[in-house]
Amino acid sequence: MKDLRPIIWDDDKKELILIDQRKLPHKLEYFICKTYEDVAFAIKDMVVRGAPAIGISGAYGLALAEIKGDDIYKAYNILKNTRPTAVNLFWALDRCLEAYKKGKSILDEAKKIHEEDIETCRKIGMIGEKLIEDGDTILTHCNAGALACSAYGTALSVIRFAFYNGKKIRVIADETRPRLQGAKLTAFELSYEGIPVKVITDNTAGFLMQKGEIDKIIVGADRILADGTVYNKIGTYSLAVLAKYHNIPFYVAAPLSTFDLKSSEEDVIIEERSEDEVAYIDGVRIVPENVSCYNYAFDKTPPDLITAIITEKGIVKPKKDDILKLFR
Amino acid sequence: MKDLRPIIWDDDKKELILIDQRKLPHKLEYFICKTYEDVAFAIKDMVVRGAPAIGISGAYGLALAEIKGDDIYKAYNILKNTRPTAVNLFWALDRCLEAYKKGKSILDEAKKIHEEDIETCRKIGMIGEKLIEDGDTILTHCNAGALACSAYGTALSVIRFAFYNGKKIRVIADETRPRLQGAKLTAFELSYEGIPVKVITDNTAGFLMQKGEIDKIIVGADRILADGTVYNKIGTYSLAVLAKYHNIPFYVAAPLSTFDLKSSEEDVIIEERSEDEVAYIDGVRIVPENVSCYNYAFDKTPPDLITAIITEKGIVKPKKDDILKLFR
Repeated sequence: MKDLRPIIWDDDKKELILIDQRKLPHKLEYFICKTYEDVAFAIKDMVVRGAPAIGISGAYGLALAEIKGDDIYKAYNILKNTRPTAVNLFWALDRCLEAYKKGKSILDEAKKIHEEDIETCRKIGMIGEKLIEDGDTILTHCNAGALACSAYGTALSVIRFAFYNGKKIRVIADETRPRLQGAKLTAFELSYEGIPVKVITDNTAGFLMQKGEIDKIIVGADRILADGTVYNKIGTYSLAVLAKYHNIPFYVAAPLSTFDLKSSEEDVIIEERSEDEVAYIDGVRIVPENVSCYNYAFDKTPPDLITAIITEKGIVKPKKDDILKLFR
Repeated sequence: MKDLRPIIWDDDKKELILIDQRKLPHKLEYFICKTYEDVAFAIKDMVVRGAPAIGISGAYGLALAEIKGDDIYKAYNILKNTRPTAVNLFWALDRCLEAYKKGKSILDEAKKIHEEDIETCRKIGMIGEKLIEDGDTILTHCNAGALACSAYGTALSVIRFAFYNGKKIRVIADETRPRLQGAKLTAFELSYEGIPVKVITDNTAGFLMQKGEIDKIIVGADRILADGTVYNKIGTYSLAVLAKYHNIPFYVAAPLSTFDLKSSEEDVIIEERSEDEVAYIDGVRIVPENVSCYNYAFDKTPPDLITAIITEKGIVKPKKDDILKLFR
């Protein structure tokens, strides 16, 4: 995926270059951010998306504020308020603000976060791929891939490394309405690398499980609480219930930066995005003019539905003690 | 829904007039069938869809063959092979062929099937609405409405009659990918009558159940076996598993013509439609060019996930003895 890194820092021009993920899979275009406001827009409008990727982008956003001599605290707040659910954004911004308070360079910290993420994703893949068996058909939801991170991805890193290690696998990608990250991004990423992938409507996952065609499910996460509760793209919870019913292992792959050890369920805001994301597909209205829609962007999966969580520090059960050990 | 009857027989011109459901909700256009081949195309291309509606249309198709002096057996076979899963089509065609063999008019039989369906749907609504309580939020999938029948619908007839009887209800309509019958047809039908309806992505149903926002689920059926196994629009099975997990009543509403007492699971063909239905939405490709899709149109829900089946002869448990009693 060397040519498809979704986040590039141009150190000469001091610009953040993002793959414009709103245009994929048909066009590979770049979106240039010269200011932190550009970055805030890019996160909000999902030019860049995926928990780790918006963390890295947010960090570079704060670095742009530093470079331009903007009010760092104002920039911090504006960037923090772009999207409410994924915790990596807050984690990355806090880390950069901490560095700033210590008189360090925010840009250096952002670069460090970026580099660390590449290594983290690589480790998640190498550790997680041991769970994959030769011949497995793996279902995934949304895009927890290179496009959601710096490189490799989280869930898709596991899939990649199984493939790199010669395991014959195939992937079923939920299209993932409303924004269709599965159909548009996951299918694009995997086919780009020659990993066999088929797209299904989200509706079809349960039927394939019933038919015995799914061996494992791997998804990413936008936030994981200390007790193992996982917030991820809407539809994840339904898949987890279906996995339990069919006795199919359900794995979550995420870096430690996705864990939120401080919050409880009450603290987590599940983003409600514009209902136009449901009512329109690529500019065409599919719902009658006078009818409105719900558009929850994420849902909540309780730990009892999760087989294990794959992190860069190892694979853990979704239990508080095991999770806390990762941070020691 | 007087103005929205999806199937009209023009006795002067001897033409079948169908609402072109491919154009809804934005355009209310009619598709005129002058020959049985026109009807076969209309069923195949989903100008008309919904198990009872394709049954009625198939019957008029055979009547058109009679009127035009075509080979009735050839017409029967062509019409029968338009779509494989919904049994009402075979039931209606067999009934018309039986009449023909007895020297009776096929057109008269088709008209009878049409009229009976209106009465059947009305009864399903009146019987089923007793299951609905004031204040209920009801989830439905696909379109089991007037547009899928002659009038009223099956699942939506239950909802209509609860509404007519003054119960304050609201409906959540799954958009129902890939063809979006929920977003396009159910939302259109219900809002047309002033019944409160909101559209969700299919992904969102489980999350709303988890939040306690769904009181009941009602769907239609394309085929019901003697043991209560239900074939219906893809996604129905997932909903039924989710309903069981959340302890939410899961009802299936269907006329007796949807029951197939002769077949076993092995006999039922689950239609696989063109993968373009998944890969394109309203003409826009959403999946990378080199990636293919699965497109199963239906799935199978086992009886243990179904609370009860609502028919024009009463409400039954999905058990063989109870089902067989309906036919005595």
